[in-house]
Amino acid sequence: MQLIDGLAISKIIKEELKVEVQKRTSQGFKRPHLAAVLVGSNGASVTYVNAKVKACEEVGFDSTLVQLSEDATETEIIEAINGLNNNSNIDGYIVQLPLPKHINEKKVLQTIDASKDVDGFHPTCLGKMMLGLPTFLPATPMGIITLLERSNIETKGKHAVVIGRSHIVGLPVSVLLQRNHPFGNCTVTLCHSHTKNLEEICMQADIIVAAVGIPEFVKGSMVKNGAVVIDVGITRVQDDSKKSGFRLLGDVEFATASEKASFITPVPGGVGPMTIVSLMQNTLLAAEGKLAN
Amino acid sequence: MQLIDGLAISKIIKEELKVEVQKRTSQGFKRPHLAAVLVGSNGASVTYVNAKVKACEEVGFDSTLVQLSEDATETEIIEAINGLNNNSNIDGYIVQLPLPKHINEKKVLQTIDASKDVDGFHPTCLGKMMLGLPTFLPATPMGIITLLERSNIETKGKHAVVIGRSHIVGLPVSVLLQRNHPFGNCTVTLCHSHTKNLEEICMQADIIVAAVGIPEFVKGSMVKNGAVVIDVGITRVQDDSKKSGFRLLGDVEFATASEKASFITPVPGGVGPMTIVSLMQNTLLAAEGKLAN
Repeated sequence: MQLIDGLAISKIIKEELKVEVQKRTSQGFKRPHLAAVLVGSNGASVTYVNAKVKACEEVGFDSTLVQLSEDATETEIIEAINGLNNNSNIDGYIVQLPLPKHINEKKVLQTIDASKDVDGFHPTCLGKMMLGLPTFLPATPMGIITLLERSNIETKGKHAVVIGRSHIVGLPVSVLLQRNHPFGNCTVTLCHSHTKNLEEICMQADIIVAAVGIPEFVKGSMVKNGAVVIDVGITRVQDDSKKSGFRLLGDVEFATASEKASFITPVPGGVGPMTIVSLMQNTLLAAEGKLAN
Repeated sequence: MQLIDGLAISKIIKEELKVEVQKRTSQGFKRPHLAAVLVGSNGASVTYVNAKVKACEEVGFDSTLVQLSEDATETEIIEAINGLNNNSNIDGYIVQLPLPKHINEKKVLQTIDASKDVDGFHPTCLGKMMLGLPTFLPATPMGIITLLERSNIETKGKHAVVIGRSHIVGLPVSVLLQRNHPFGNCTVTLCHSHTKNLEEICMQADIIVAAVGIPEFVKGSMVKNGAVVIDVGITRVQDDSKKSGFRLLGDVEFATASEKASFITPVPGGVGPMTIVSLMQNTLLAAEGKLAN
């Protein structure tokens, strides 16, 4: 079993991005500039946004944090977004999810200018992805493909089983894995809460992507010998033995699955760091203006 | 084995549309208006466009045919499209594919205003479909779902195997079959030219959608007893015994597959008529202005 060290891979890519930024600034171009909209002060959201700001510093991007209070109205959030749409100094931005319950998340996300949507959630980005047109790919699915690529894992003709059909991970990664691409061309099965005989389907998988949001859902008994296991889940579970009071669990029972897998991502330090790196890669693409959105 | 009679189902839906149009005109609304852009005089294309014009007459829609010569330039085609985008009298339109080889099809299709793209091929339409937002669904995939619905075929938790990953059928129908919808919620496996052990995968299917474009590709030996078989293929094969000189074959070997299937679509008269009906349904939606594209 070989660990897919997302943290190490993300560091290598950040170094590559840093070099690219230095090259651009030395040529007289401005630094790529990422903004983040944070509504409220949800603990996990603050952590994620801070990590994104820190990643910008590491690679030499400018960053701007737009903070709104928990009770911000939909209109106020949309005004902030329009401000970013019209600010030519901002190359790309993200709206940290989840938004407070009183906000129509779909409506807000659709006001993001697709040419600045470096999270790749905009309908136009997803549609272009389906059609194989150049676009920002959604960050976590893109990070998963990058992990496969950087680990030199052959995907062509492999059977990939994706568990979970969320709009931000499961469904788009199933599209990416099937497309005609050096790290695509998989036969893809998309499973979800209505799937029967999930264990039997998983046992056929050469590649399992677990994105279901239930800690330790995928057991070793569901993993074929030699399969590649990508664990997208990350759930805080109470653990009084830890100073923080919690520990992080993935969607895969690591102890048993790692005995069967040829490659496996740990949690934390697997897919997580790649999401941020994909965001940085998309922001550089936005700054380069190479995508005619 | 029960035949899914797409021709009969399409006639019922056309009658429903006719009633709806009569209701709208009696309320003072104008008739829905579909336009078609035809470039050149490819035999199959002319047949398809004529069938669409005829369907408009049947349901009481207005129709406009925009004909361009085989050697029309990309600019001329885009000008024609812009004319339709700006013509408020046209509710929706289609650009008949394939376009001549010297034309960049992807570029042309992207100039279609998404709010008039009743074929549902526009990136924004496909992205909205992925996100479960109201939009025009691509016509053939939508017709397949309608066939399942009108035949009262339970889909929830069923394993659907889609063969073929084209942008106009295979990939979008795989998205529609998995979504949380009364005629969705399937576990979906998307297969294509790189798929290994296709026969083994097909034998697990409760629903097979064959959209591969190879006549009689799916044999009875690949069909599980009781499976539902949807045949999207339609290929002209030389047949000197026919007056026309050809006959139409689907992607399924009907004689052997129909012995195993619980439901099966014939070719012709299965999926084909549904594509046109979906187009009519989308045009009515466009005329009603219910989709905020």
